[in-house]
Amino acid sequence: MPDMHDLTRKLQNQNGSKIVLVVADGLGGLPLQPGGNTELETARTPNLDELAVQGTLGLSIPVKPGITPGSGPGHLGLFGYDPLQYQIGRGVLEALGIDFELGPNDVAIRGNFCTLDADGNISDRRAGRIATDKAAPLCEKLDQIQVPGVEVFVRHVKEYRMVVVFRGEGLGGEVDDTDPQQTGVPPLAPTARNPSSQRTAEVAQQFLDSARAVLSNDAPANFLPRRGIDKKPEIPTYLDVYGLRAGAIAVYPMYRGLARLVSMDVLDAGQTLGDQTARLKAAWNDYDFFFLHFKYTDSTGEDGNFDAKVERIEELDAAIPQITQLRPDVLIVTGDHSTPSRMRSHSWHPVPTLLAADRCRPDDCQAFGERDCLGGGLGQFEAKYLMPLALAHAGRLDKFGA
Amino acid sequence: MPDMHDLTRKLQNQNGSKIVLVVADGLGGLPLQPGGNTELETARTPNLDELAVQGTLGLSIPVKPGITPGSGPGHLGLFGYDPLQYQIGRGVLEALGIDFELGPNDVAIRGNFCTLDADGNISDRRAGRIATDKAAPLCEKLDQIQVPGVEVFVRHVKEYRMVVVFRGEGLGGEVDDTDPQQTGVPPLAPTARNPSSQRTAEVAQQFLDSARAVLSNDAPANFLPRRGIDKKPEIPTYLDVYGLRAGAIAVYPMYRGLARLVSMDVLDAGQTLGDQTARLKAAWNDYDFFFLHFKYTDSTGEDGNFDAKVERIEELDAAIPQITQLRPDVLIVTGDHSTPSRMRSHSWHPVPTLLAADRCRPDDCQAFGERDCLGGGLGQFEAKYLMPLALAHAGRLDKFGA
Repeated sequence: MPDMHDLTRKLQNQNGSKIVLVVADGLGGLPLQPGGNTELETARTPNLDELAVQGTLGLSIPVKPGITPGSGPGHLGLFGYDPLQYQIGRGVLEALGIDFELGPNDVAIRGNFCTLDADGNISDRRAGRIATDKAAPLCEKLDQIQVPGVEVFVRHVKEYRMVVVFRGEGLGGEVDDTDPQQTGVPPLAPTARNPSSQRTAEVAQQFLDSARAVLSNDAPANFLPRRGIDKKPEIPTYLDVYGLRAGAIAVYPMYRGLARLVSMDVLDAGQTLGDQTARLKAAWNDYDFFFLHFKYTDSTGEDGNFDAKVERIEELDAAIPQITQLRPDVLIVTGDHSTPSRMRSHSWHPVPTLLAADRCRPDDCQAFGERDCLGGGLGQFEAKYLMPLALAHAGRLDKFGA
Repeated sequence: MPDMHDLTRKLQNQNGSKIVLVVADGLGGLPLQPGGNTELETARTPNLDELAVQGTLGLSIPVKPGITPGSGPGHLGLFGYDPLQYQIGRGVLEALGIDFELGPNDVAIRGNFCTLDADGNISDRRAGRIATDKAAPLCEKLDQIQVPGVEVFVRHVKEYRMVVVFRGEGLGGEVDDTDPQQTGVPPLAPTARNPSSQRTAEVAQQFLDSARAVLSNDAPANFLPRRGIDKKPEIPTYLDVYGLRAGAIAVYPMYRGLARLVSMDVLDAGQTLGDQTARLKAAWNDYDFFFLHFKYTDSTGEDGNFDAKVERIEELDAAIPQITQLRPDVLIVTGDHSTPSRMRSHSWHPVPTLLAADRCRPDDCQAFGERDCLGGGLGQFEAKYLMPLALAHAGRLDKFGA
């Protein structure tokens, strides 16, 4: 049976239309009090409300009902890739998060500095949460390690965390973690879970032996166990499945990395929403599709700061005219998941979604908010269907069947 | 690609929260007159309405749109098992319905008494609908039949119906029915549909030969053709897929049996709703999840008695405070299917569903009824997603992906 990408690949056409996908990270929320308003319902959003009147609303289910997504599956869903089919490992996500460009022959690994005692047992799994200014130079030392036949990259992430990448032919991604997840025991040996990952396990062992020597005088950070060893999933490109030249305008590396996973071009986003909309305008003629990522609706939610999240939503609203003046054929504003400030975390609640286009069927929604979206014309839909809806409203999908 | 149980198995956590699933069998209904109210909309349900204001509503689609489920698939869906993936045979359902505890080596068969004429052809497929007081002793006679190498159980169900169980190693469940579904022809010989069911067919033939001899003087019930020969499906347990210790409080054997299929503990439910809520209270500390089954919303619907169904709904409403005073973290009230009294049968109509929990997103519903549920925050969803939603609202599911 054909899947959605088989359909969009076959039905896609080129008509010069422009689609803009604005992702307000963690947009959905909850009221602080029973019967109260959510962050989005509380915010004064005249521009989004005007779009809500013109366009059509709905609620996006990021993965499946009840499932709370991380940023990876949350964005893959919005990009139109089934997040259960395309799973991104933690090593790959960590590499994406520091803008490391993973290639097809790369195996990415999350590494932790840890402390070994005199018997070689782990006494602290995070090396006393060693500070960044101490850890970064150690990563530079580790980056010098050579393993015959492969390239080795060690990049510092934050405090005790780093990414290790092995680049070479024949490196499978199925190797068990060496972090025993407890203290008082030695790190585990890297063990391949299938024959095609045997070489990876050997490379990892050689690297770890060298690392032990390199770090021997650097207590408390005298070893690194590793967690999350993965290869980048093979994901078809936007140009292939949708016929779209896609550009990503994201301030944070994680989201640039997620865009790169589906082969979007990553554009210089600057630091502010103003920088981002300026980049959008400057690149307008170069792409058919733009992904614009706004982080702070999520981070304020994670902080549990309802009022700050409201302010960030209002900041986004104020930037909307900079986008609409470019006259996109389809403008979508949504989130990759909900982050209710009341919960201080991602949640499973469906995400308010606004799609504005000339061919929207009216749904009588008057404002952009969770309750309005409940009655919206898009209904509740799995996030992976958003891109087909965008393409349809842009006139970029031909008829299926005669 | 992982399925929902792969997800819930991986993401589940233990937090001591309690979930109560109240199944009002056949809850959904229809108005008697165009434009009228359904049974649920007609009933005075102050307690359910209060929960509807606090919680979130929706409509559950038991299997797929347009599909009317029996009790088996209806409950499996609510329990979170895809009813198209896990199918329960008629023999197994009949055994569940008389509280017979099926083991993994059991083959269960629905049997009918029938009448053979002098030529050995079936003259009455139901033996004149022989009465229970006549049929039960015949079943006891049949229960004495011995077949070498297997245990044989014959249990009377009702009138001309019985359950036959063969217990032994190497008994497959793929044997054709021996009931030719018409009169004037002889019963069919048991025929295996695959090699691993060959032994079952042989056992069945031996049993039928003996039964014919045993019943030779018991006309009109002088033979039994058989319909529905099945093994219990292998179903992962609640503890496995959800991490829940589950207790079932059901008055009727069929629903105890369905709960047993997913390895819930079956608790003494007594006879009345008062007995059931008392049991719930008594067992409160022993389980994480409770399934409480209320039969009479279905049986009154099947009787075509609109007013009686309304009364039964009001009876259930009156019992709600006995549940809420226990302070469950998640309380769900729904049905396994609709049984509109106007139709006197199960139907395909989506089932009104109420989920009350602290982290519900408000949806402005003011009462528990089909029309309110249409605007509810859960939307229309396949029943199999109810358990993930329950787990999410109970804080029992971790984030998927980083």
